[in-house]
Amino acid sequence: MHFDTIIRNGTVVTASDTFKSDVGILNGRIAALADGLASANEIIDATGLYVMPGGIDSHVHLDQPSGDGIVMADDFDTGTRSAAIGGNSTVLAFCMQEKGQSLREALKIYHEKAAGKCHVDVAFHLVITDPTPEVLGQELPALVEDGYTSLKVFMTYEGLRLRDDQILATLDTARRTGALVMVHCENEDAIRYLIGRHEEEGKFAPKYHATTRPVAAEREATHRALSLAEIVDVPVVIVHVSNREAMEEIRRARQRGQKIAGETCPQYLMLTADDLDQTELEGAKYVCSPPPRDKASQEACWEGLEQGVFDLFSSDHCPFRYDDAEGKLNEKGKRHFRWIPNGIPGVATRLPILFSEGVMKGRISLNQFVAVTSTNHAKLYGLYPRKGTIAVGADADIALWDPARRVTLTNDLLQHGADYTPYEGLDVQGWPVRLLIRGESIVSGDGLLKQAAGQYLPRSRSHLTTRQQA
Amino acid sequence: MHFDTIIRNGTVVTASDTFKSDVGILNGRIAALADGLASANEIIDATGLYVMPGGIDSHVHLDQPSGDGIVMADDFDTGTRSAAIGGNSTVLAFCMQEKGQSLREALKIYHEKAAGKCHVDVAFHLVITDPTPEVLGQELPALVEDGYTSLKVFMTYEGLRLRDDQILATLDTARRTGALVMVHCENEDAIRYLIGRHEEEGKFAPKYHATTRPVAAEREATHRALSLAEIVDVPVVIVHVSNREAMEEIRRARQRGQKIAGETCPQYLMLTADDLDQTELEGAKYVCSPPPRDKASQEACWEGLEQGVFDLFSSDHCPFRYDDAEGKLNEKGKRHFRWIPNGIPGVATRLPILFSEGVMKGRISLNQFVAVTSTNHAKLYGLYPRKGTIAVGADADIALWDPARRVTLTNDLLQHGADYTPYEGLDVQGWPVRLLIRGESIVSGDGLLKQAAGQYLPRSRSHLTTRQQA
Amino acid sequence: MHFDTIIRNGTVVTASDTFKSDVGILNGRIAALADGLASANEIIDATGLYVMPGGIDSHVHLDQPSGDGIVMADDFDTGTRSAAIGGNSTVLAFCMQEKGQSLREALKIYHEKAAGKCHVDVAFHLVITDPTPEVLGQELPALVEDGYTSLKVFMTYEGLRLRDDQILATLDTARRTGALVMVHCENEDAIRYLIGRHEEEGKFAPKYHATTRPVAAEREATHRALSLAEIVDVPVVIVHVSNREAMEEIRRARQRGQKIAGETCPQYLMLTADDLDQTELEGAKYVCSPPPRDKASQEACWEGLEQGVFDLFSSDHCPFRYDDAEGKLNEKGKRHFRWIPNGIPGVATRLPILFSEGVMKGRISLNQFVAVTSTNHAKLYGLYPRKGTIAVGADADIALWDPARRVTLTNDLLQHGADYTPYEGLDVQGWPVRLLIRGESIVSGDGLLKQAAGQYLPRSRSHLTTRQQA
Amino acid sequence: MHFDTIIRNGTVVTASDTFKSDVGILNGRIAALADGLASANEIIDATGLYVMPGGIDSHVHLDQPSGDGIVMADDFDTGTRSAAIGGNSTVLAFCMQEKGQSLREALKIYHEKAAGKCHVDVAFHLVITDPTPEVLGQELPALVEDGYTSLKVFMTYEGLRLRDDQILATLDTARRTGALVMVHCENEDAIRYLIGRHEEEGKFAPKYHATTRPVAAEREATHRALSLAEIVDVPVVIVHVSNREAMEEIRRARQRGQKIAGETCPQYLMLTADDLDQTELEGAKYVCSPPPRDKASQEACWEGLEQGVFDLFSSDHCPFRYDDAEGKLNEKGKRHFRWIPNGIPGVATRLPILFSEGVMKGRISLNQFVAVTSTNHAKLYGLYPRKGTIAVGADADIALWDPARRVTLTNDLLQHGADYTPYEGLDVQGWPVRLLIRGESIVSGDGLLKQAAGQYLPRSRSHLTTRQQA
Repeated sequence: MHFDTIIRNGTVVTASDTFKSDVGILNGRIAALADGLASANEIIDATGLYVMPGGIDSHVHLDQPSGDGIVMADDFDTGTRSAAIGGNSTVLAFCMQEKGQSLREALKIYHEKAAGKCHVDVAFHLVITDPTPEVLGQELPALVEDGYTSLKVFMTYEGLRLRDDQILATLDTARRTGALVMVHCENEDAIRYLIGRHEEEGKFAPKYHATTRPVAAEREATHRALSLAEIVDVPVVIVHVSNREAMEEIRRARQRGQKIAGETCPQYLMLTADDLDQTELEGAKYVCSPPPRDKASQEACWEGLEQGVFDLFSSDHCPFRYDDAEGKLNEKGKRHFRWIPNGIPGVATRLPILFSEGVMKGRISLNQFVAVTSTNHAKLYGLYPRKGTIAVGADADIALWDPARRVTLTNDLLQHGADYTPYEGLDVQGWPVRLLIRGESIVSGDGLLKQAAGQYLPRSRSHLTTRQQA
Repeated sequence: MHFDTIIRNGTVVTASDTFKSDVGILNGRIAALADGLASANEIIDATGLYVMPGGIDSHVHLDQPSGDGIVMADDFDTGTRSAAIGGNSTVLAFCMQEKGQSLREALKIYHEKAAGKCHVDVAFHLVITDPTPEVLGQELPALVEDGYTSLKVFMTYEGLRLRDDQILATLDTARRTGALVMVHCENEDAIRYLIGRHEEEGKFAPKYHATTRPVAAEREATHRALSLAEIVDVPVVIVHVSNREAMEEIRRARQRGQKIAGETCPQYLMLTADDLDQTELEGAKYVCSPPPRDKASQEACWEGLEQGVFDLFSSDHCPFRYDDAEGKLNEKGKRHFRWIPNGIPGVATRLPILFSEGVMKGRISLNQFVAVTSTNHAKLYGLYPRKGTIAVGADADIALWDPARRVTLTNDLLQHGADYTPYEGLDVQGWPVRLLIRGESIVSGDGLLKQAAGQYLPRSRSHLTTRQQA
Repeated sequence: MHFDTIIRNGTVVTASDTFKSDVGILNGRIAALADGLASANEIIDATGLYVMPGGIDSHVHLDQPSGDGIVMADDFDTGTRSAAIGGNSTVLAFCMQEKGQSLREALKIYHEKAAGKCHVDVAFHLVITDPTPEVLGQELPALVEDGYTSLKVFMTYEGLRLRDDQILATLDTARRTGALVMVHCENEDAIRYLIGRHEEEGKFAPKYHATTRPVAAEREATHRALSLAEIVDVPVVIVHVSNREAMEEIRRARQRGQKIAGETCPQYLMLTADDLDQTELEGAKYVCSPPPRDKASQEACWEGLEQGVFDLFSSDHCPFRYDDAEGKLNEKGKRHFRWIPNGIPGVATRLPILFSEGVMKGRISLNQFVAVTSTNHAKLYGLYPRKGTIAVGADADIALWDPARRVTLTNDLLQHGADYTPYEGLDVQGWPVRLLIRGESIVSGDGLLKQAAGQYLPRSRSHLTTRQQA
Repeated sequence: MHFDTIIRNGTVVTASDTFKSDVGILNGRIAALADGLASANEIIDATGLYVMPGGIDSHVHLDQPSGDGIVMADDFDTGTRSAAIGGNSTVLAFCMQEKGQSLREALKIYHEKAAGKCHVDVAFHLVITDPTPEVLGQELPALVEDGYTSLKVFMTYEGLRLRDDQILATLDTARRTGALVMVHCENEDAIRYLIGRHEEEGKFAPKYHATTRPVAAEREATHRALSLAEIVDVPVVIVHVSNREAMEEIRRARQRGQKIAGETCPQYLMLTADDLDQTELEGAKYVCSPPPRDKASQEACWEGLEQGVFDLFSSDHCPFRYDDAEGKLNEKGKRHFRWIPNGIPGVATRLPILFSEGVMKGRISLNQFVAVTSTNHAKLYGLYPRKGTIAVGADADIALWDPARRVTLTNDLLQHGADYTPYEGLDVQGWPVRLLIRGESIVSGDGLLKQAAGQYLPRSRSHLTTRQQA
């Protein structure tokens, strides 16, 4: 058989398997896994490399309006560029409904933001901030049919957070339509309360971002989200879990028999609340929600990845410039932590950090790496079997990883819009030396080979809501 | 490329993936997964069929001496024949050390029992009943190097059970050698105590087998085994878990950070203690340990399979004839449940039951089916990547499943040595219509095509004890 | 010494002790516990009787406006009469703030409702339904100083329920003032959601009151209330706990180190959801919130009383007439369970039921009976040491119990305003044959000896908020 | 009335109540609690003092043979003298059965050891080390009838520890006889295993006593003891609990519905494993089992006292001299921690430490102090209502506590046989300035007023095994 491209002599890694095999690519899809493939227009030598599905980052914020003159540091151009540099072939970004806005309007805007700018494939989660009967009863069912099969709700952030009745109504729509709901679990009112106490005590430094969002506020909201899902009888995804107590809530829900997916992020493996407590306002660089906790929480999150508490490892990429009046150090943010925009860049560093700290240090297996960075994202968010694996018939979205390559992370390397990375100076071993999307080489070495080749991906329903038989 | 055999038009299923692909087999191994393979000595049409790795049953008792004139109903001939009929290409049987016996002597005997009789591939777990310093310090390290990389210890059965100091010493040897220890968790002393109370009260019927082995006795031993493993700092496998409380112990151990594998069996999904309470002595057919519990426990075990509490789904095949002086209804067994030999046949029914009740009823996915019946067994017991998957380079151990085929289970069908099956009359949908082992068709239709083609398999260490990087 | 009254030959029971002793009463207080007291104006022979502190029922609703033309069946006259008949010398009723109303206004109204009508001593909990800054910042601190030292908040009932921010603000006021907060824990939004689903399915019968208020809705709210209290760092009382899952939340909070009091009620020991499922609309008689659960929950609540999960056993007396357009079977209530007023009568039956089912059946001790029906109420709600015990210096609030007296509960016996009791026909053993309040005999035999002798009780702070040293 | 003695103007404290009252004593018993008692042979002014029941220390080792030439530092003379100095009127010591010895023989020996030497009242727990059918079936039932109503079993210490079958048999005898079983929960085999690993690594210092007895070994044994009790269906006392994980096991057992009593000791509130890690061999002074843990465990144990996880606060007084060839620093003990005798003195310091650190610092109430140091011991071990309270009819065992008295603990003060106290130099506030036993003043100021006035106390059954109605 003659292929467009053959990847030779590599070690193929899927979410369950690791084996030596050549890979034959035809018409953008994987057509053959076999020994001794020979005939192709292009032959890529993967000796010593892992041939893995391109990363899917299902938790990425790009070009979202952030209020108060704050500007997100990445649009779809820089954000997906950085994603590609970091070994990702697909990102799922958020389409944020404004209050009073229809979802179709919101989608129109986000499709326009993305149009012609995406260097990797892209799909949208719908963030529900105004769950009117119209939105839930009319728009959403139609949009789910159209391939927007995942929603997100916030239990925190004034202006975004939903009340319980709204969450229940949204979950009920998910139950009726087969959509999958992601939940950001922190109790907004508890946080507001603690901010008030901090203000009374004159505590305004960045480090107080962490003390006003304690583990109890995350544990409470996690249990509540899980209980609401239990009552509606619908699966949910608990996103960006930061600590052992919230993990225990996921375990308890499963012990009760619920179907739950869990997600954690690099910041909960690599950072702690101490990072927010630095000289000057440097701590602002690490302000994100939930905040990083402590060493014991990092250990817990590693265990959760290894043990399957977490199905997903995502970046929660939400970039702001640090030394910038439109970013972390805006005028109000300099004086009070609550005005420092929440979020850190991470779409490019997610995979190298997990590969180096997780796989190379023996905490997780190569297969677990693929599962939590790609395959499970595809299955949970309706992109499987087209995306998320190395299998005959799948899109040839392939990252070639060199496990011997040592890299020191620097901001320049990451090609995102932020002026810093929280991981500046971190040495990692293992790097995605080449990225193919639908069979085309998009990244090789340090740069993009092809611009704006990304496509929009309509999606089917989640494996979690509709057990797939075949 | 020219192949020995091509399987065409089937749907390949692995522990993570499901995709349409032909499979090319050469020299007993899978050489290609690709569309449109054409050239081969033999072409098998798999239209409408699933192409899955042959089942690996890692919990099978064959030809073990059972004391008191009791004879196990299957030797390696009938046992592996029945395994093959049921879609298995590999079984892991137990090599039972007698008191005072060296492991080498025991292995010699079991290899002789197996020699020339096995219709599927076979390996041995070493059951440690006499963990002398000689055995643990000298023999075991050498045997682990020789490929006997898993051990089993019993916390119940007089004559087999180890005391805690012996379990600790065995776990410590596992720690030093990288062997993996399976633990049968029931508190023998508690059971003896309850038998005594039952005897005082004149309770001798088969149903009292269940009431003398309560959930608390299993939960206690499970927590103890997990605690001993925590203290030694070594992984363990908790085998044949029957109920939610024992599952919670596994979850708690993982929440503490331990590495644990869990196993459940068909009897805990399909039977209850009520099955032991029948007219005459019919209940004896269902006597096994731990005993089946209740409907809520069945539900718990299903959830455990779906949620990853259980990595393994095994048969715990331990067959005795029912109406037989050497079996269930031996002279003493007729009069007192404690003399009814413990165990039920199940090596042939394991896969069809899980396929029908699990996959076809939407409780687990096809990929989970493959994971818990084959891939995880291979990985946990050192047979991976040679066994347990459909991947280039792996042994061509392949079961073709017809998801449309409806079969009523009857004892005759199963070709084992027992004179009954606990599942007589059960209708299942889905059946392994063909089995290949190392590329050769061994079963097709209802019978063996080739006799005694099984091989002995030396094994590497478990993925659980040595994180595999590639 | 000469006394006003001597109670002779009885067995004194306190929350910790049981001993034979005469009791000398002088000026309304207990002046002596001793053998052989002889000189008094009045001598009461208590041979064969228990001399116990009069019951304190800290959870009683009287004369509350109930909206929609519904009228509560008891005012302070009939309610406290029934309380006295049932062996209580003190009740704590609720003063319900209306929206927009100041607490002082509300108190004025409730004091007027009570004035001249109370047959037992009375105090008020303040139900906070409109926690404005004025109310929390100004009124409440002053009212706590004035002896209104306990608050109640609702997480359910539209119009009453507080949002989390309001609960936090109320808890914070409690933290600043030393007031103690009681929380009714059910998730209102979840209940509304389930009512909506029931309505879609045409389910309107009384039994659906129970299915729309599931255990998960109570467990969720319980964990939330406990988490908010953890965040504010203040004790709370979880009232009327109905099941094991909510109990587990209390245990988990204590395991985290929180100070929590728990309460259960007779309906959770004696009724089940099946009682709501009767011919015609009879089930309406048992509609209360949380609803009674099942037999296993009853067992759990008994264990909780015995083990100290519950400090308080209260009636949650909230009476409505059954066959009455202003009661259970109002026009709307006949057609839809949601319009059946929530609540059942119980102030008279609380003590006899617990005595008979608890003490006489050996589930709890006499001392536990006194603790959970009287002493703990006094300590938790700031009436101790004046109330709640038999000790020198305490008010002579004394109930004489005849443990041999057998009574069949009937509605007539209870002298309350409702036209039914949920316990009609229940045979109890043990009865309060005489009740003294501040030394005066108020009840003897079946009737009141003295009318309207009750006093209003200002209170000190709770033992839970201010550890008392002496 | 005329009394032998009147205690005037004090504040009486019981397990539930605190009130001003005079106390009249007649014939060694409390005859009156009343205001204004006037006529007596002796009048003690208790102005400013608490009048509390004398301490009952139910966990005291005296004059036990300790093997290998080790001699316990206290016999019944010095031990009960020190107890009296520390405010105790009763101690429960252990009668240790030797292997092969009948319990009657053992009792004869311990009665002889005690005869004529006891300065406080004394009773014996029977330590079962050789539970033969004779002992359990014949002796024990008779001895329980004779007033030896509590047993103790060890799960640790070679030579003392029982196997599970022996524990079950002992628990079963308890079930049949109404005796109450105390359990020392540590997994001996796990400890042996860890000692072996320490020895391999050349770790012999006293601090390794703590690392060879980890929390997991205590948690395991606690869960096992509780499970065995669940299976037999009998209450147990878990003694000297040291940490939160073991506490959680007690909570879980109660959540399952079991009746359990728990005990903790001063060393788990005041010491940590760091105390074992000192220059030279000083750490030997703090070697006891379970070992003290860490600050978080101390906090947990305080919470457990406050919340009722623990019913009992005992000393586990088990004294050895430090600088002595027959004590801690015996020849072998100097070289290896495993030969340092386990135990610390504490019978005199138990009450002052809890009063000062607990009551005076607001962690527990005065009533809780009385409950956990006296009343609950009396109730759980069958001495109630004769002992453990201030009530009419009870023995006049009374400690007068001066809450203003400040004392610096020194070894000399304690009058025990050990040459050190682990609490040397600790400042406490509150001291038992006078002790009466059965109405006689035994201690006043710093010394004994009367020698050897203690009596032996036969006991009734525990409140935990036979719910007492009156």
